[in-house]
Amino acid sequence: MLYRDVIYLHTKTDSFQDVTERVAKIIEESKIRDGLCNVFVKGTTAGVMLNENDRMLIEDFRKLLATMAPDEHLYQHPENAKSHLRAAMIGNNITIPVADGKPMVGSWQNIILFEFDVVNREREVVVTIYGQ
Amino acid sequence: MLYRDVIYLHTKTDSFQDVTERVAKIIEESKIRDGLCNVFVKGTTAGVMLNENDRMLIEDFRKLLATMAPDEHLYQHPENAKSHLRAAMIGNNITIPVADGKPMVGSWQNIILFEFDVVNREREVVVTIYGQ
Amino acid sequence: MLYRDVIYLHTKTDSFQDVTERVAKIIEESKIRDGLCNVFVKGTTAGVMLNENDRMLIEDFRKLLATMAPDEHLYQHPENAKSHLRAAMIGNNITIPVADGKPMVGSWQNIILFEFDVVNREREVVVTIYGQ
Repeated sequence: MLYRDVIYLHTKTDSFQDVTERVAKIIEESKIRDGLCNVFVKGTTAGVMLNENDRMLIEDFRKLLATMAPDEHLYQHPENAKSHLRAAMIGNNITIPVADGKPMVGSWQNIILFEFDVVNREREVVVTIYGQ
Repeated sequence: MLYRDVIYLHTKTDSFQDVTERVAKIIEESKIRDGLCNVFVKGTTAGVMLNENDRMLIEDFRKLLATMAPDEHLYQHPENAKSHLRAAMIGNNITIPVADGKPMVGSWQNIILFEFDVVNREREVVVTIYGQ
Repeated sequence: MLYRDVIYLHTKTDSFQDVTERVAKIIEESKIRDGLCNVFVKGTTAGVMLNENDRMLIEDFRKLLATMAPDEHLYQHPENAKSHLRAAMIGNNITIPVADGKPMVGSWQNIILFEFDVVNREREVVVTIYGQ
């Protein structure tokens, strides 16, 4: 059985959003009890990560990514190269197990979308559930 | 067809374990011949990677991650920020093809779990196989 | 329904190839309209990434990875440690949604294979489609 839905988000430049509950709700609506859930963000300047939603930790993540791909740096790609690089380091697709109609994840394992682009964006997060 | 099992591991802080054979055994037990196998580690301070299980290479990986998220550094998240950051750089979920009842991977492509936390942990690695 | 095919590539050391169209063609051949598509590269010194295929951006990616795992550096793993490290940072497996028989990705979201090895290689990219 296959079920798919899309989460539409307005994102602000250089921000994050926790989509754990919205993904859990889609899994519930799917009526799929056991299987896998794929979370995929369209676009090349946003990322999706499974980790703790702690504001201070998110700040540590932002600093790490800003060290890797700094704001002030001579890139070849114009405008938002840093956004692409940071997004690729985080990745934009995750697949998690589903058990008893719920994401089978650790207690602190939240699904966090990072907007790395230099302008505000409209984002589509595609959630696909496969199972029985 | 769906099959799921969990690998329970005792991990020591800052260590790694090769789970390739245990995953292959679960695939065998599933009787699924062709499909996909998802390997997912619960928790936000451990990672799972597909790469060569060579002790010297693993040391190179640890050094790279320690350069990215150093032991001695002022983080905002208390205690184990470095563990979260290193885990996120490696990722905690992989999906690999299954053919003829075996992981369809390269000869040196082992499934390696990294424990990045600052204390020993009990870990659950969820293995989900989907196919026919 | 399950469908699998393999893309065979000759790769040059330290190069990249865009496989978006070949993956789209396999999805079309599968006759699967809705589901998920897993793209997996065999081997431990190549990576696969979803991002914009812009020559200047790719150059930025190469520079970032060369900063993380430099050419000239004392590694413990002999010969091609840098290739393993760079490959692991990019990852070697992605899973993308399929809708209406096409990859459901952003306009600039190309599937790009990176060859990080120090010699030319023959690569196998396994494409598995699951759906209905």
